[in-house]
Amino acid sequence: MNAPNDLLPRVERRLVPAEMLAALSARFGDRCSTAAAVRDQHGRGESVYDAAPPEAVVFCESTEEVAFVVSQAAAHAVPVIPFGVGSSLEGHLLAVQGGVSIDLSRMDRIVRINAEDLTVTVEAGVTREQLNREIKDTGLFFPIDPGANATLGGMAATRASGTNAVRYGTMKDNVLALTVVNADGQVMRTGTRARKSSAGYDLTRLFVGSEGTLGVMTEITLKLYPLPEAVSAAVCFFPSIDAAVQTTIAIIQMGVPIARCELLDANAIRAVNRHSRLALREAPMLLMEFHGSDASVAEQADTVQGVAREHGGADFEWARTPEERTRLWTARHQSYFAALQMRPGCRCQSSDTCVPISHLAEAINESVAEAEASRIPYWIVGHVGDGNFHLSYLMDPNDAAECAAVEDLNVKMVQRALRLEGTCTGEHGIGLHKMPYLLDEAGPAAVATMRLIKHSLDPKNIMNPGKIFAL
Amino acid sequence: MNAPNDLLPRVERRLVPAEMLAALSARFGDRCSTAAAVRDQHGRGESVYDAAPPEAVVFCESTEEVAFVVSQAAAHAVPVIPFGVGSSLEGHLLAVQGGVSIDLSRMDRIVRINAEDLTVTVEAGVTREQLNREIKDTGLFFPIDPGANATLGGMAATRASGTNAVRYGTMKDNVLALTVVNADGQVMRTGTRARKSSAGYDLTRLFVGSEGTLGVMTEITLKLYPLPEAVSAAVCFFPSIDAAVQTTIAIIQMGVPIARCELLDANAIRAVNRHSRLALREAPMLLMEFHGSDASVAEQADTVQGVAREHGGADFEWARTPEERTRLWTARHQSYFAALQMRPGCRCQSSDTCVPISHLAEAINESVAEAEASRIPYWIVGHVGDGNFHLSYLMDPNDAAECAAVEDLNVKMVQRALRLEGTCTGEHGIGLHKMPYLLDEAGPAAVATMRLIKHSLDPKNIMNPGKIFAL
Repeated sequence: MNAPNDLLPRVERRLVPAEMLAALSARFGDRCSTAAAVRDQHGRGESVYDAAPPEAVVFCESTEEVAFVVSQAAAHAVPVIPFGVGSSLEGHLLAVQGGVSIDLSRMDRIVRINAEDLTVTVEAGVTREQLNREIKDTGLFFPIDPGANATLGGMAATRASGTNAVRYGTMKDNVLALTVVNADGQVMRTGTRARKSSAGYDLTRLFVGSEGTLGVMTEITLKLYPLPEAVSAAVCFFPSIDAAVQTTIAIIQMGVPIARCELLDANAIRAVNRHSRLALREAPMLLMEFHGSDASVAEQADTVQGVAREHGGADFEWARTPEERTRLWTARHQSYFAALQMRPGCRCQSSDTCVPISHLAEAINESVAEAEASRIPYWIVGHVGDGNFHLSYLMDPNDAAECAAVEDLNVKMVQRALRLEGTCTGEHGIGLHKMPYLLDEAGPAAVATMRLIKHSLDPKNIMNPGKIFAL
Repeated sequence: MNAPNDLLPRVERRLVPAEMLAALSARFGDRCSTAAAVRDQHGRGESVYDAAPPEAVVFCESTEEVAFVVSQAAAHAVPVIPFGVGSSLEGHLLAVQGGVSIDLSRMDRIVRINAEDLTVTVEAGVTREQLNREIKDTGLFFPIDPGANATLGGMAATRASGTNAVRYGTMKDNVLALTVVNADGQVMRTGTRARKSSAGYDLTRLFVGSEGTLGVMTEITLKLYPLPEAVSAAVCFFPSIDAAVQTTIAIIQMGVPIARCELLDANAIRAVNRHSRLALREAPMLLMEFHGSDASVAEQADTVQGVAREHGGADFEWARTPEERTRLWTARHQSYFAALQMRPGCRCQSSDTCVPISHLAEAINESVAEAEASRIPYWIVGHVGDGNFHLSYLMDPNDAAECAAVEDLNVKMVQRALRLEGTCTGEHGIGLHKMPYLLDEAGPAAVATMRLIKHSLDPKNIMNPGKIFAL
């Protein structure tokens, strides 16, 4: 077994011509960097792969600057890779065919808040935490929250979701409009600020989830939601993972409008306790949140407690204050980094399957049995209300046999999810890692259709090439 | 001023070769018809245009049969136009370039109900009313309800919505997966039954709203919802349209999870009273519905009554029984046909603009002022909770000056909606009628992108050609 990058398709790197580098340097000065450390940081993410650095990194500050870089890239048939904060889990950021990384993190302005319409327009480099900080005074919030403090651009590119998706949907449901630099460097708008439209092809939804392969999103108009009148969070412990999952299935089937319903297994709690100095019981746990009016929150909590009790759930422990609540959710969001610290020097390979809710128990229980048998350290967190869970292995990157075993276990989880009518990725995207799974999932005709779209919108194959499909 | 069809782009009709007609007859027998009446019925819809009949109509009963027709069409470069019940309002069904209509109304089987996952898979010819009848025993329902009893295929093709969209979203939000016959007659699947996915381009969302121009949808997997524990409907009358709209704006901005919030003006109520033998006050009215638990429905109604009162709304009149409720909503759904009967022999041109909610009063008030000044009969219904309303003119198709005046008023409404950051069509689609407006709305770069997609997926331009964009 070789190092992870040896599994990637062999493709030629395309060189950035000196003429183009000179043009970028002339326009961007210090903001065009070829320093090894900068390139290295931009050629990786939170994936299992070693870095594949771009030849240069350009720090753009406006849509026009992005358009300039892409025009240059188009003229020279050089790849460009959009970069936010580098939290991709599937190798989206590796410059496998060379080229230039477009760092959008300085495009961090809130362009326009329309509180009266529950919309906001942001530059692509705004992070989700920054957004919620900056709109706090409006009484509105943006619910989508992947684990990392990702940029809205990155979240749109991977069709991200997180802990609130069970109630508020994913990026697919919450992006209204986009400003996009297309593959010939032209700026275009998709969508409007209206809540719905039947005006032609849904380009917004095509770009959301396209992982930088069709264009660079530079501005994003999002839906916002009124902060609920009442919020309450609780944890509940179960005798088994199965009991926690069965509780979730019942909650969803009853149509309870629960806002968050997260599973953590004992391993995840152990990591979180240590990292965030909590003292949670180390047993399968559901971390739940209810949003609504005082009466409706009470009613939801009551219904859910009844269901949990039927499945052997211990009494709810309530987060009584906003501070307690924040502490719990921060711990949940940091679980990835908490788990990494459980095995120093390890790399994490995180599965991301999502299945119809009635198949969730089967998907999780069989995966847990395999994980236990493997004796490789693992932990589980899951957006179980969506049927989505992450079983993550902590593997020694220098132990080829262990890496191979993990990849094998991952394939089994994906095959199981597909057999159960689910998807290989609920929210992380295809990137480099899941290209063969996409083919299994969507089938050759659908993937051929995706390729036709890719080739027609990006005939020179310069937009984050080698991702989603190999060529 | 000429008849409406004279406004269409001049294009050559492509003839169906005798060889292809023979192949269709051999395979389909009686189910391939060239009778004038059948062709005429399939070459129109509920639009302002005269019929443009296809050369033949094939009544398909399976995906394989559709694939056979499309393969034939691909081999001979002949247009195909999918047909459901013929309720399109924008000329989608006219065979402007000739070809074959594929009637899907016999594909009316519920393929699979997965009540435990809140999903159902239907053939494209199932109508929305049939679907809700057939799943009644599951305790679930499908909320999307355009005025007509349209097919799910037609609804997906136009990205339809209706009265429940303010709470449950549109077809874009409620289609999970599709079976599609693409332009070379190949069958493909998009999406899965999982609630969310980041697996490659969102082909499902690309086909939803593509108006038959990219492929023929033959099976559709939909989200279902638990029937609410409590439902209550009420009407409330206002001193002016503006007061009703201001009430709506406040409701949405407060985040009340209202399920339906429909505006009818006095003209619409007059028509509905006469057609459905009701005795509603002929004044601007909001027709509302609340879904939830008993407590939450009571709470929502209380909040909304307070807001309505502040804007001069009279006390709510409640629909106390399910029968009363059904009677009100049936009347609302029949308002289109009710209004047509107010001016015998007329044709109806219905606007469909949708704007951000804060601009809705301006959009409606200015449109009403123009309508009053025109002295042409009109009526208004609106899914005002979404910012979407239909101001419909009843025009004499033989009065060229009146037709021209209506078109002119329609252009003004669209221009106003675009100025107010909205869309030319909230739910009816582009079809033939709104091609120039799409260009104004989306801009040349976005429309060029749509064309690239069209050309790459349908290089022979056989899938409902001449719709969305002229060529």
